[in-house]
Amino acid sequence: MGIFGKRKSVSVQTIRRLPQYLRVLCDLHGYGRELVSSTDLAEETRLPPIVIKKDLQAIGAPSKLRSGFKVKGTMEAIENFLGWDNLNRAFLVGAGHLGAALLGFSGFKNHGLELVAAFDTHPERVGEEINGVRVWHTAQLKGVIEEKNLKIAVLTVPGPAAQGITDTLVACGIKAIWNFAPVKLSVPADVVVQQEDIASGLAELCARLKKS
Amino acid sequence: MGIFGKRKSVSVQTIRRLPQYLRVLCDLHGYGRELVSSTDLAEETRLPPIVIKKDLQAIGAPSKLRSGFKVKGTMEAIENFLGWDNLNRAFLVGAGHLGAALLGFSGFKNHGLELVAAFDTHPERVGEEINGVRVWHTAQLKGVIEEKNLKIAVLTVPGPAAQGITDTLVACGIKAIWNFAPVKLSVPADVVVQQEDIASGLAELCARLKKS
Repeated sequence: MGIFGKRKSVSVQTIRRLPQYLRVLCDLHGYGRELVSSTDLAEETRLPPIVIKKDLQAIGAPSKLRSGFKVKGTMEAIENFLGWDNLNRAFLVGAGHLGAALLGFSGFKNHGLELVAAFDTHPERVGEEINGVRVWHTAQLKGVIEEKNLKIAVLTVPGPAAQGITDTLVACGIKAIWNFAPVKLSVPADVVVQQEDIASGLAELCARLKKS
Repeated sequence: MGIFGKRKSVSVQTIRRLPQYLRVLCDLHGYGRELVSSTDLAEETRLPPIVIKKDLQAIGAPSKLRSGFKVKGTMEAIENFLGWDNLNRAFLVGAGHLGAALLGFSGFKNHGLELVAAFDTHPERVGEEINGVRVWHTAQLKGVIEEKNLKIAVLTVPGPAAQGITDTLVACGIKAIWNFAPVKLSVPADVVVQQEDIASGLAELCARLKKS
């Protein structure tokens, strides 16, 4: 669909699988392994070896003839491809249960994302710290975003509030929104919106259950 | 990859998009609309019309020559395809922030899933009600599952606890696990595991940010 115009050969599906490979490769690297075959990776990820091989070749992972992929070099290739070798500072809007769950997810730092601020409108949440991250009042969005020079927002507000907050974020110069609210957001063409849809996973589960 | 052996023509990507169409169709139905074109649906979902047309044709959505898809019939086709015309009763293990967020998600009932019990080990959570759902101690899993005849589990426990709980669930005769823990689960071949991976969405976002 042309979203990834500059890298035609790398599909969204490949990109979505890269974090799985990275997790296994990190473990292997921790054990001192230097080379890994796609068959070994298949055992750990339960994906077909041919899919793994094509995915890793698509992002230019280094390999050694007949010995498989280089563990460290492949980790670096994935991190470089995703920009996870640099830490992106981001903030979260909506510090309810889902927001708190994301603030508590320790894995983000290994995935290039550091949440440095949170915003909410509930008086009992404002001023609190969740997992070391301060919760500000949403009215303070503009000031905090400018002071900290933030460009990436994680949106975990209720659906009806999402577009209003988005308009404020766009006015503040935000360049990317990771949207967990079940609402399609209207944004200018230069703002990237990544939509999470909990119902997609449920649809997949239900279709497989019906079949099984 | 043959997961959907019986319905070769319907891809995982198509299945994951169906909930989006269903949401728009429900709105249109509420407004009294009887027909909708793929171009109209494209405006609401921001997907290419040709993708929408192929997706809906793949699941046998009824259409009228040159007038588009029948709104009510297409809703029914999606719900029937996903089994969402019957309510599946499920339970949740791990009533932390993510678990509480899922228990608070009112949309599940429209998506064929009703959470009827939750389990946790923390004394301050056991005995509580979250959004009307009672939290039981994990030690009571077997008894409650059997009494309520439950077959679908939603797993929101920390990673290190996931496989142990899974082994218990399998011993209790569970047939499907929707796993939010960042761990690949080992299960017998007849148990369906749907793996959610928060890092997949983040990888997509980062790849698009790097490109933009």
